[in-house]
Amino acid sequence: MIVLGIDPGTAQTGYGVVEGDTSMRVRLVECGVIRTRPRDPLGARLREIHDGVTELIARHHPDVLAVEDVFYAKNVRTTVVLGHARGVILLAGEEAGVLINEFPPAEVKKAVVGTGAATKEQVQFMLTRLLRLRSVPSPSDAADGVATALACLMGARVPRLDRGRARIRPAQGIA
Amino acid sequence: MIVLGIDPGTAQTGYGVVEGDTSMRVRLVECGVIRTRPRDPLGARLREIHDGVTELIARHHPDVLAVEDVFYAKNVRTTVVLGHARGVILLAGEEAGVLINEFPPAEVKKAVVGTGAATKEQVQFMLTRLLRLRSVPSPSDAADGVATALACLMGARVPRLDRGRARIRPAQGIA
Repeated sequence: MIVLGIDPGTAQTGYGVVEGDTSMRVRLVECGVIRTRPRDPLGARLREIHDGVTELIARHHPDVLAVEDVFYAKNVRTTVVLGHARGVILLAGEEAGVLINEFPPAEVKKAVVGTGAATKEQVQFMLTRLLRLRSVPSPSDAADGVATALACLMGARVPRLDRGRARIRPAQGIA
Repeated sequence: MIVLGIDPGTAQTGYGVVEGDTSMRVRLVECGVIRTRPRDPLGARLREIHDGVTELIARHHPDVLAVEDVFYAKNVRTTVVLGHARGVILLAGEEAGVLINEFPPAEVKKAVVGTGAATKEQVQFMLTRLLRLRSVPSPSDAADGVATALACLMGARVPRLDRGRARIRPAQGIA
């Protein structure tokens, strides 16, 4: 199973492509960020993000698109603009017919580290270990994308085929 | 000049197509709502909205896409989901190469009624008069779409051709 994990952002959208086999071995295929130019109008930036995700899906044919959920509101305006980015990411998945799975940040931490209260450093340490990497994926948005993909692979039940209500949720514990 | 005005919503996205000539006469071309099914996953609903706006642009070839801005937060979750809908609407405009113009609700009211504190009823009364309609466009989301288009036509300066920074703003008063 191949999972494309996404950490949405208007300036930088982090992503990670992780492959897992039936014996729960996981492998990092690719990670990085989709960058947009701050001076561009919002519409143009959203198009960059949408087209970037579409391209990643075409390249890796993921079985699941795992998108980090963002419903905290430090700054309402920022959170709403982030909603715009998530909107075009979900649209890209929908257009490609990929199963979409949304994860709140705490679920990502819980699936990777074992507790929803884990720090960013703990998550990065665990994903480096689980994927047998020499260093933490960089920039940190890319690492967040990888963590989201990993959370989906490690915690998810096998997706069912009836797409209509296929909002799969990660299992409680890690095997 | 033809303006497609949009009032974004996940359940119902209202729209209005209004045409204005050089002597400031305005005419309603079409209005309505793009409805989505509440039981559908968010990705499918976003696709309905995106494809609906794309279809409207293809049918009417608007010069400007005027989108109501939504940055109030009665309920953060609702506001963020609304951000998702706005994201795919702006994307549809960007993909079609249409000039995008964003209006906060108070600017729509100010352009149509003359005060940002106008009630919904005052806005509906004025747009019915200005467009010489027999009745208020219904449902009210459609009327909101029409009001946004009208605000753009009545208040907007002539759009400049340098699209890069073409975020036009409505003028302060109404001629």
